[in-house]
Amino acid sequence: MKRINDRNGKGETAVNDVTNQVANYVLTTTLDDIPADVRKEARRALVNYMGCALGGCRHPAMDITIDTLAPFSGKSTASVLGRSDRFDPMLASLLNGISSHVHDYDDTTPANYIHPTSPVASAMFAYASANKVSGKDFELAFILGFEVVSRIGNATYPAHYDAGWHSTGSIGVFGAAVAIGKLIGLNQQQMVWAIGLAATQSAGLREMFGSMAKSFHPGRSAQSGYMAALLAKGGFTAGVHALEGPRGFAAVQSASYDLSRITEGLGENFDLRVNTYKPFPCGIVTHPTIDACIQLRNEHGIDPDKITAVRLRVAPLVKDLCDKKYISTGLEGKFSAYHAAAIGLAKGKAGLAEFTDETVNDPVVSAVRLKTESTGDPSISEDGVHVEVELSDGKKFVKQLEHSIGNLKRPLSDPQLEEKFRDQATVLPKSQIDELIATCWRIEELEDLGNLIALAVPRV
Amino acid sequence: MKRINDRNGKGETAVNDVTNQVANYVLTTTLDDIPADVRKEARRALVNYMGCALGGCRHPAMDITIDTLAPFSGKSTASVLGRSDRFDPMLASLLNGISSHVHDYDDTTPANYIHPTSPVASAMFAYASANKVSGKDFELAFILGFEVVSRIGNATYPAHYDAGWHSTGSIGVFGAAVAIGKLIGLNQQQMVWAIGLAATQSAGLREMFGSMAKSFHPGRSAQSGYMAALLAKGGFTAGVHALEGPRGFAAVQSASYDLSRITEGLGENFDLRVNTYKPFPCGIVTHPTIDACIQLRNEHGIDPDKITAVRLRVAPLVKDLCDKKYISTGLEGKFSAYHAAAIGLAKGKAGLAEFTDETVNDPVVSAVRLKTESTGDPSISEDGVHVEVELSDGKKFVKQLEHSIGNLKRPLSDPQLEEKFRDQATVLPKSQIDELIATCWRIEELEDLGNLIALAVPRV
Repeated sequence: MKRINDRNGKGETAVNDVTNQVANYVLTTTLDDIPADVRKEARRALVNYMGCALGGCRHPAMDITIDTLAPFSGKSTASVLGRSDRFDPMLASLLNGISSHVHDYDDTTPANYIHPTSPVASAMFAYASANKVSGKDFELAFILGFEVVSRIGNATYPAHYDAGWHSTGSIGVFGAAVAIGKLIGLNQQQMVWAIGLAATQSAGLREMFGSMAKSFHPGRSAQSGYMAALLAKGGFTAGVHALEGPRGFAAVQSASYDLSRITEGLGENFDLRVNTYKPFPCGIVTHPTIDACIQLRNEHGIDPDKITAVRLRVAPLVKDLCDKKYISTGLEGKFSAYHAAAIGLAKGKAGLAEFTDETVNDPVVSAVRLKTESTGDPSISEDGVHVEVELSDGKKFVKQLEHSIGNLKRPLSDPQLEEKFRDQATVLPKSQIDELIATCWRIEELEDLGNLIALAVPRV
Repeated sequence: MKRINDRNGKGETAVNDVTNQVANYVLTTTLDDIPADVRKEARRALVNYMGCALGGCRHPAMDITIDTLAPFSGKSTASVLGRSDRFDPMLASLLNGISSHVHDYDDTTPANYIHPTSPVASAMFAYASANKVSGKDFELAFILGFEVVSRIGNATYPAHYDAGWHSTGSIGVFGAAVAIGKLIGLNQQQMVWAIGLAATQSAGLREMFGSMAKSFHPGRSAQSGYMAALLAKGGFTAGVHALEGPRGFAAVQSASYDLSRITEGLGENFDLRVNTYKPFPCGIVTHPTIDACIQLRNEHGIDPDKITAVRLRVAPLVKDLCDKKYISTGLEGKFSAYHAAAIGLAKGKAGLAEFTDETVNDPVVSAVRLKTESTGDPSISEDGVHVEVELSDGKKFVKQLEHSIGNLKRPLSDPQLEEKFRDQATVLPKSQIDELIATCWRIEELEDLGNLIALAVPRV
């Protein structure tokens, strides 16, 4: 898919000022300019984010980063979500970014494959932990940061992503910079510099997928964007055409692009409306199988011990990617269509606990997995599945699914988002989880985000 | 110039392991493996670097960075070269990188247009300030870091640079990572991860040229490489084919490349042998004019007040780039062939002081500048010049120069490097400068680099 390259094509006059326009939009927009449904979706994104940060906050990648970088932290004025450790807000940004992305469970804008909330909110929660920020200001800055990320993503997709950039990092940095810039009150000139300092820190390679470094990307971009905003406020100058210049972000990091997509409909269309939340912490192509199997179990009260055969018909791509039947680790389970069917039928859910080594080796789960067969079928879409289950009493149940839960056609409901949250928030006691969720929903009423953040860390 | 792309061309087996080979080379090399002339050149690079760091240490970009980021510094265990401020070594890395590059006066490998010493040595001096490092270990790690930077530069030049990457930042990060990795004793696996964590922080756009953000590049890459090495030591995993993988540095950040240039002759050829030191802190194409005019002044004892005309014949490119005659700021002076002639003839030197607003507006200097004419002449190379000076007593002197001082054919001598050092080291008293220079030359004898670093900061 070839897009307009503004260096060579038409539309040059419209986009030769895009950095300036983005800065101006971020600076002049107020919460009153944001439609109510977008504000609501922002709160859903933040609820989802917070759950993911709590779910990842004890991951080894977090412990290693803390052990390694704590000596390089300034005054401990900021909380790390889910942990009692406190660091300076820039290190806390990095850590929030790692925790919220490390299970690959955070939100996705399917139009550009970015996880926009992690880099933006990770910096913002760190900032708001160390500095007083009202809920309204926080929500507004988040919406703007999210929007800037997704629009730069749209303008450079698919070339930027296809080249091998992990755009959650390489583009996320812009969102962190403008969101923090909005909170600290940059002026127009400073906001342009902040975007420049973000651009010149844009990084993150897909070659890192499958390692801890993947989760480092939103963390480092949160931290780098935060630094960009602060330096710009201090007067550190940068190039003023960071996005559109001949040696700027788009020209250097995307073989083709259409910068008009950054500014078109700005203030009218909001990409939070096309954001999605993963229902399960595993390869997205196994989601239809899990979804269908959970439905079968719930509709027919299936006893997993009575299952004699499970037959999946999946899209050929799914067969290619997730054909791992003989597995022993939770990580392998994330990319196994057989394990997907087994946990759906045997557990009726697929949260973090269903992707541990223990669950993969659970006798009931593995028995169902071994009785499962799968066939690639070109008539099945990547978002669909056909499942047939046979029981020892001769009964047979069938489920054909066209669209899996979690995509734009079947978004997670608020209660489902809350369930996902609770599933991940095991570092906190139940009563605190209830209060935290309730407080996230009423973020606009908060005078100080610090009250919410206090609920997101264990009480010592 | 199209290079072999190892994804599509021959030689795939030779380079599909290049990250691993680089790590292995860095880990297994000892100072005894380094030829004496390369060790000598490393000391020359370090002398040149140290002078540049002292010359830039009071630049406003430094003050802004310190004011902004001091609250985010951990324990103050590291000195910033040239300043009495102390911070954690990662912030000190950033600051050393800014100061040593901010006047664009640091070394250059002309084969790939990188300034390799700044990102590598900036991290190393910060590390060695906070941790005991012997002079021999320091020199070895520096040589290896420099070599890795320049070789990755060779492998991806010119595509990477031409695309708009400021390779001093985007490639410098690898040198900082392996040099710090060598000092902290990474094993093979960790060194591979460190290279991965460096790759995934590779950043820096040429769009920032002309702003403070240019000097931020070697600083941030020093800091990021330092962090990469530390995280790898802690066990933070990364992709293991960071350089050669299908979504790795070369594939993503260089339209064409030849990775065999990274490993070819490794341990035999050293790019420190083809490093150059700028004699003057200004656009390199004005160097021949300055050089020739200083020679004319010295040879004939020219009194600038008696000059009635100066005629330059320069390469057409020089005429294009540096045709600014009516100027009022030092920054403009850096790209004015007329100012170049004027300071050569009126001052007999061209150090930092000759590129201040004050000198540009000095009556004697500006009088000579206004009497200077220049002509583009295709018979003159970009490294040459033809200068004719007429005096009021009718005398006329001519100088034709083929190769300007500072390039590989006419490298700065040790005394010239020292003169350049002294010119920049004005933050220190003369006796301390003498001792610092002497100590730099005998770095191999030092048991603790801290003794050298102590000489590079003002005594309070």
